[in-house]
Amino acid sequence: MSNVYDVTNWTVGSDPSLTAYEDIGAVINDIIANIHSNQTSQDSKPGAVIYIPPGDYTLLTMVTVDVSYLQIKGSGHGFTSRSIIYNSGDTSSWYEVSPGSSHIMVQNTDGNSQAFLVSRGGNPRLSSIEFRDFCLDGVNFIPNENSYTNGKVGIEVASNNDSFRIEGMGFVYLEHAFIDSGADALNVTNNFIAECGNCIELTGSGQASKVTNNLMGAGYLGYSIYAQSHTGLLISGNSIFPRGASMVHLSNTSQSAITGNMFHSFYSGMIDSDGSNDRNLISGNYFQRDIETYSPFFSDNNGHDELYGCIFLLGDNNLISGNYFMYNVPASYITPSGATPTIILVKGGNANQVSGIYVYSNVGVNNIVLDASTTSTLILDSGTSSQILAYTSDYTVRYTPS
Amino acid sequence: MSNVYDVTNWTVGSDPSLTAYEDIGAVINDIIANIHSNQTSQDSKPGAVIYIPPGDYTLLTMVTVDVSYLQIKGSGHGFTSRSIIYNSGDTSSWYEVSPGSSHIMVQNTDGNSQAFLVSRGGNPRLSSIEFRDFCLDGVNFIPNENSYTNGKVGIEVASNNDSFRIEGMGFVYLEHAFIDSGADALNVTNNFIAECGNCIELTGSGQASKVTNNLMGAGYLGYSIYAQSHTGLLISGNSIFPRGASMVHLSNTSQSAITGNMFHSFYSGMIDSDGSNDRNLISGNYFQRDIETYSPFFSDNNGHDELYGCIFLLGDNNLISGNYFMYNVPASYITPSGATPTIILVKGGNANQVSGIYVYSNVGVNNIVLDASTTSTLILDSGTSSQILAYTSDYTVRYTPS
Amino acid sequence: MSNVYDVTNWTVGSDPSLTAYEDIGAVINDIIANIHSNQTSQDSKPGAVIYIPPGDYTLLTMVTVDVSYLQIKGSGHGFTSRSIIYNSGDTSSWYEVSPGSSHIMVQNTDGNSQAFLVSRGGNPRLSSIEFRDFCLDGVNFIPNENSYTNGKVGIEVASNNDSFRIEGMGFVYLEHAFIDSGADALNVTNNFIAECGNCIELTGSGQASKVTNNLMGAGYLGYSIYAQSHTGLLISGNSIFPRGASMVHLSNTSQSAITGNMFHSFYSGMIDSDGSNDRNLISGNYFQRDIETYSPFFSDNNGHDELYGCIFLLGDNNLISGNYFMYNVPASYITPSGATPTIILVKGGNANQVSGIYVYSNVGVNNIVLDASTTSTLILDSGTSSQILAYTSDYTVRYTPS
Repeated sequence: MSNVYDVTNWTVGSDPSLTAYEDIGAVINDIIANIHSNQTSQDSKPGAVIYIPPGDYTLLTMVTVDVSYLQIKGSGHGFTSRSIIYNSGDTSSWYEVSPGSSHIMVQNTDGNSQAFLVSRGGNPRLSSIEFRDFCLDGVNFIPNENSYTNGKVGIEVASNNDSFRIEGMGFVYLEHAFIDSGADALNVTNNFIAECGNCIELTGSGQASKVTNNLMGAGYLGYSIYAQSHTGLLISGNSIFPRGASMVHLSNTSQSAITGNMFHSFYSGMIDSDGSNDRNLISGNYFQRDIETYSPFFSDNNGHDELYGCIFLLGDNNLISGNYFMYNVPASYITPSGATPTIILVKGGNANQVSGIYVYSNVGVNNIVLDASTTSTLILDSGTSSQILAYTSDYTVRYTPS
Repeated sequence: MSNVYDVTNWTVGSDPSLTAYEDIGAVINDIIANIHSNQTSQDSKPGAVIYIPPGDYTLLTMVTVDVSYLQIKGSGHGFTSRSIIYNSGDTSSWYEVSPGSSHIMVQNTDGNSQAFLVSRGGNPRLSSIEFRDFCLDGVNFIPNENSYTNGKVGIEVASNNDSFRIEGMGFVYLEHAFIDSGADALNVTNNFIAECGNCIELTGSGQASKVTNNLMGAGYLGYSIYAQSHTGLLISGNSIFPRGASMVHLSNTSQSAITGNMFHSFYSGMIDSDGSNDRNLISGNYFQRDIETYSPFFSDNNGHDELYGCIFLLGDNNLISGNYFMYNVPASYITPSGATPTIILVKGGNANQVSGIYVYSNVGVNNIVLDASTTSTLILDSGTSSQILAYTSDYTVRYTPS
Repeated sequence: MSNVYDVTNWTVGSDPSLTAYEDIGAVINDIIANIHSNQTSQDSKPGAVIYIPPGDYTLLTMVTVDVSYLQIKGSGHGFTSRSIIYNSGDTSSWYEVSPGSSHIMVQNTDGNSQAFLVSRGGNPRLSSIEFRDFCLDGVNFIPNENSYTNGKVGIEVASNNDSFRIEGMGFVYLEHAFIDSGADALNVTNNFIAECGNCIELTGSGQASKVTNNLMGAGYLGYSIYAQSHTGLLISGNSIFPRGASMVHLSNTSQSAITGNMFHSFYSGMIDSDGSNDRNLISGNYFQRDIETYSPFFSDNNGHDELYGCIFLLGDNNLISGNYFMYNVPASYITPSGATPTIILVKGGNANQVSGIYVYSNVGVNNIVLDASTTSTLILDSGTSSQILAYTSDYTVRYTPS
């Protein structure tokens, strides 16, 4: 009775001819059932590792994970750009036209949208489940290959959870790559998430989690990172590339840090927010803002104009410090036409501080715009008087010497 | 003669019936003896990998590691909260009540306190030993489950060492998770260390090491990270949660950097120091300070009052720059009663600098307190005149505009 | 037909007696040929994993990698200091005298300089190739063991590539550890690269790549990190130790970020540049500058004098913010003799900004020197009037209060 499983040599008792290549979901569910039947003592449920060798696997049946300490692991993230393939016309001479490595094509026929649903009621919370080093691929977008929509979810964690790891994974062409509701000490690190509608969605609430050292980029209407009602979230050392309606969207998230990231976007709202997001630190990041370069997406965007801000901030007592903003949008692309673009919009809140930013721009911009509703904002060394626009008198400023 | 070992199928020659489940320590020691007997040429000692599949293993005998390039590896960090389990009363209906994955219960009967002792005299120093992806579990604390004490040590590296990696490990309920004396280019990354008396203790001296991208939190009297006589230490991208007498304790440690971390604590002394700690950089960190929320620990703390400082600094020429401090302690919890809490206490030293910090507080605080012994401190944009308290006149300040 | 290969049990059809220990290059090439023969459908080329168990392998034949999604993986980075071994005289009593783990000795007899050459023409670009957790060792330097030269290259990626990972690798005694030309979304993370002439060379051009969480150090004439015509490069959380002619060399690289690194060097030019490097962020780093401590290298250096600067900057609109500079060079070592050393030299460019740096020095230094050609530099809180030397009047300064 080993706790090491390989999806390619597992026989499903109820359907011995079924292979993992035909329905890896049914195979993994049967393995999980076997773990349950083997590990019946409350005192000894070490879980297992399920290995997915390199190969092309179809998933027809959603996997339900309800075993703590389960590690599902492949041998590579396997990303390739489906977007380039689909938009390149005749690819008949191409070497390959699909992602690879430990590659799961999410093609549910069971009516579910998730490839993996992690959920368990009762006590304790599921702990230390790990997804590592394989590729989840949604295969197609609907209604067209550039829509970023198909309803598919790579992994959804739907019940409270502790000390999970999502590491080294690849996600491509899913509307939602990874959703986690109720995360505690979640570790999302070293993944490659691209050409997904949304990348990482931390919903419900959560604490003490981190999203570090990843490469990712969402669709033009989606989130690269979404954090709802989180505290103590650390977002650090990531490279987040276009498109993404936002790179980081904070929804009532507080006492969190966004530091040392490379952000690249084609639209306003690189860091976006709703609700009240308080006492956050946004420091040492690079914001690279230019325009769409790939023709299939020339007509798409997130709907925000250039007055929305590279950072759109709602909340109190936030510190935005030591960030670089590179803004390079041709005048003819600026909406509203003729407007002076905004780099940081403090849309609402009290006692926010912006200090020590650098703004490079190809056009005249307002480094900081303070909405009339804002109070007690402090601005230090972040622009000259002509670069700061305040619709309120309730603020303090030390202009950058010039 | 393979260099790939699996603890579950190794037979100890002197005790063929012994299994790794009964004493994984004796099994690994026998494997190491086999490596020694196979690799006798000075020119070819590549070491080995010892794999620990998911399972519950008891360790009765300390493992002595004296082979360079040995990798000991499991399939998951396996943490679960023993603290919640022990403090939850009747858990008879719970799914599981122990950590898991590749799970070693440290229960030495050999009189030793360490599960793994890494040590070798002579030349060269041990190099490139790796501990990866398994769980070391102390099982019980003594005299009670909330004491964080039992004398147990997960891994102790006792001789000078080069280019080690501690990665992806889980540690729980050990008084000391990981101790390394004499580290050069040590890499402690991506681990989960919680509910241990102390997490990472770098003792003796060391250089050019890094502690990055970890999740951890020590006991109320212990260190999350302790660094003694180190230089060139990089502590970056970690999330360090309560409790922990300190998040980082510097003891005569210099020319090191603490940057981009999320720190959360229930007590003063989040960064603590003794001796002289010189020329360090503390920048871009988030300091979240509030109070104990879990009733079993309401009466415990590290003994420091609210005048001790979130940062307690002893040393010269340090730069504390661009950090966020969130201080939220109800007035009734403040000791000494009625005192004005301190955020940064420069207890001693020359030519330290504090610049560009943000302090949010629910009560009036002193952002910076300078001891009478301090000299030539420079304070920039880190508080108004009412938020800085100096017991010396030997300092320079530019108050935050207000 | 499995996609999991082990180099130690693969039989080369054309030479059945050949083992991986004798020529791992020929073995891996034969495995790759097998992958090609097995995976012939354009729609299903998942690649494979090639496992290298711990052992000492000689490579006589260059491996040519032209398969996407190939993961080549060992069980440890296996570094030991060959430099210490070679310079220690009689090592006959030493335990071991070579690197180890999954250890490949690069000894080409085929006329090639590369151990691994990754290259493919046509479409699509090679994607998601991974090198993980093994050791590439050049064995000897020529003409002497301290020269850092032997013409050997560990891995060269010579054609455009997407989403590669170089992770957990060890490199030692190679003139070039890793070269990548045309990288997109490259991920170089958690490697150990030491005693190589050059560590990471990103040539040609590239975008959206990251070099994070590594330990490395090049030779006295080489690059630790070299970036040519890159944009969106993130260099974060690395510890880069001596020697290295530079820690990071930027050559026409723009819109990139160097943040939260520990840099330690024995020479000027820690961050060096040529061409025009524009709109970069250099923040939150530690620069530790002292002198050579190991006698075999006392007479070696990178040729730059102490006026060259710890940072030598050519380019426009760069922000250097919140870095610590520790400069400790005895007066007798300073060249030109009697000169006042330079910490940051803005050699050329427009609208650069230096703010909030801290300089510790054992001798009088110029924190910032502005060349006569520079324009519109802004200096904030980075030195007193006696610490800033401008050969131009076209700059703005706010001196550090004193």
